[in-house]
Amino acid sequence: MNLASIKRPCLLIDRQKVKRNIEVFRHKTQNNNIILRPHFKTHQSIVVGDLFKQAGIQAITVSSMSMAKFFAGHGWKDICIAFPFNIREIDDLQDLASYTGIIILISSREQFQFLAAKISSELRFYLKIDTGSHRAGIPASQTNQVSELLKISKTNPHLKFIGFLSHFGNTYSANSKNDIVKIYKESIKQLEGLKSHFIQHYPELIISVGDTPSCSLIEDFTGVDEIRPGNFVYYDLMQKHLGTCTYDQIAVAVACPVIDLYPERNEILIYGGAVHFSKEYLCDRKGNKTFGSVVELNEKGWGPVIKGALLKSISQEHGIIKANKSFLSKIRIGDLIGILPVHSCLTADLLKDQLFLIN
Amino acid sequence: MNLASIKRPCLLIDRQKVKRNIEVFRHKTQNNNIILRPHFKTHQSIVVGDLFKQAGIQAITVSSMSMAKFFAGHGWKDICIAFPFNIREIDDLQDLASYTGIIILISSREQFQFLAAKISSELRFYLKIDTGSHRAGIPASQTNQVSELLKISKTNPHLKFIGFLSHFGNTYSANSKNDIVKIYKESIKQLEGLKSHFIQHYPELIISVGDTPSCSLIEDFTGVDEIRPGNFVYYDLMQKHLGTCTYDQIAVAVACPVIDLYPERNEILIYGGAVHFSKEYLCDRKGNKTFGSVVELNEKGWGPVIKGALLKSISQEHGIIKANKSFLSKIRIGDLIGILPVHSCLTADLLKDQLFLIN
Repeated sequence: MNLASIKRPCLLIDRQKVKRNIEVFRHKTQNNNIILRPHFKTHQSIVVGDLFKQAGIQAITVSSMSMAKFFAGHGWKDICIAFPFNIREIDDLQDLASYTGIIILISSREQFQFLAAKISSELRFYLKIDTGSHRAGIPASQTNQVSELLKISKTNPHLKFIGFLSHFGNTYSANSKNDIVKIYKESIKQLEGLKSHFIQHYPELIISVGDTPSCSLIEDFTGVDEIRPGNFVYYDLMQKHLGTCTYDQIAVAVACPVIDLYPERNEILIYGGAVHFSKEYLCDRKGNKTFGSVVELNEKGWGPVIKGALLKSISQEHGIIKANKSFLSKIRIGDLIGILPVHSCLTADLLKDQLFLIN
Repeated sequence: MNLASIKRPCLLIDRQKVKRNIEVFRHKTQNNNIILRPHFKTHQSIVVGDLFKQAGIQAITVSSMSMAKFFAGHGWKDICIAFPFNIREIDDLQDLASYTGIIILISSREQFQFLAAKISSELRFYLKIDTGSHRAGIPASQTNQVSELLKISKTNPHLKFIGFLSHFGNTYSANSKNDIVKIYKESIKQLEGLKSHFIQHYPELIISVGDTPSCSLIEDFTGVDEIRPGNFVYYDLMQKHLGTCTYDQIAVAVACPVIDLYPERNEILIYGGAVHFSKEYLCDRKGNKTFGSVVELNEKGWGPVIKGALLKSISQEHGIIKANKSFLSKIRIGDLIGILPVHSCLTADLLKDQLFLIN
């Protein structure tokens, strides 16, 4: 990587770290004899997708029809759109399903009624189950609603039920690693209850779960057939904060040019703001916001997190780093500073046309 | 506008509201006999730029070299890049300045030293002054530093000093309209002090200021030669919260498909998340976050804000609206709901390829 060629904020992706992160999950899922269907919304990148392909991954997850089209156009043939089916995209779905293997998420009678009249080629679906995150899906306790939906699905022979899918998004607001494990276990119990209720009529039904916090901490996936974490490929400060990764596993840093120095207030102005990082933040114990951690970049990647510096505020294009005198004294206008993002999915979405694989 | 054709979250721009917002500022600046150099970072759109052109605007502001190139490529010939010059973009600057009128911002000796050796065609610059927002620029009290920089600038005859520029970003954290006006007046006083110090040697120097909160509230711009607000073209909930616009002046809404309904928890799942809105939020008195207000869309635009509904949480693509029973009972899966964004600049940046002018 030639750092001198970088002019504007861009996402540096450490290939070796990405490969290690993938390897941990490949190994873990192999040990459990379950499917790893990684969520590609985190990276949205063909080259990072290729690193998964090299690790033997064939089934993937995306979060939108547009993303499904993008990866289908680059040869991926088994794509789960892990967002409840948006009936306004029926034409796109029909088109996409005609040339690649698509799985959609269903959680309502209306979606089936819409699909039943339109779908003329095989289309697999999961029922989307809510085990407590209360974002989307049928509450796991509603077996009657599940039965009713499965009945409706049978009115179109092209619709193929494959199982129950859930996202334990509530792990993101957990207060400890133990909490995350607890949420995971309670959620799995609910899904197992559902499975035991329906397995007789659907002997091949599977259970698909996936959020990076729990999938990072759990080693024994008994009861689960597939996991769909996404963030683990890059990790970020939010995961570090949750205790689900180490700094060394964070595989992306945003390279930001130093624009000006303010030693009188111990601050550095960088080119790097909300249009590069998004406005996701973490709070320290005193309630101060942090928008990123600071690292020194080198031709092979970056060093450890600088203790006496952090990205304290961002506006559209500006970022302000608060730093101690020792760090400040080493920085010059025109240097590049590396920032580990709070939420790598959003940062990668914003910088998807400005990324470089290094190492 | 054919609402039926909308499949995914997109930005609806009410042309009549935009024209009215522009007209208010055109009128205000004409009355004060000052220049309106609107900040185009808010919309980043050629068609919205054309609405400014039709109102007689020729001078514009942008926040990056890339944005300057974009608008220069569409015929704009007087462009101020209101971000302190990033010396890593010297080649782009040289190229751009060779075919269009560019103004840059300078705040350090290093920038001049870099430019002095490279610039071979006329290049106008402002000195960037910090009057208290502490984001970027030379503190207004540092007349010695200003003198020294102006001396260095003379080593290259192509560099032309045009005045002092400031952004009163601290108005965004004001607690009342009075506070905003107070910040404005104190900041202007500092700039006038600087001007009186240097006017003898630079009789043509001008003062350029610009933030939507103060420019919306101030009617008498005595002491100022140019204003550069951007957000006023669309406004948003943050401005409404500051008291600098009415709901009726907010000229953009994000159209979001309804994905699912959860009457048992009074919630609606929409397609519309952090990759469409960014994660900017407002807090109500109880500390609850709001990511957007809800409106009913119609073929001509949208109605008033729905009192009993708000966008309470967002993740990458999902949004959750909390609503009262009366609103919930009217909504069906597949409907479109309009969301007024908290920060229109960031929302427009995310949806710049998904926008529709209506009305």
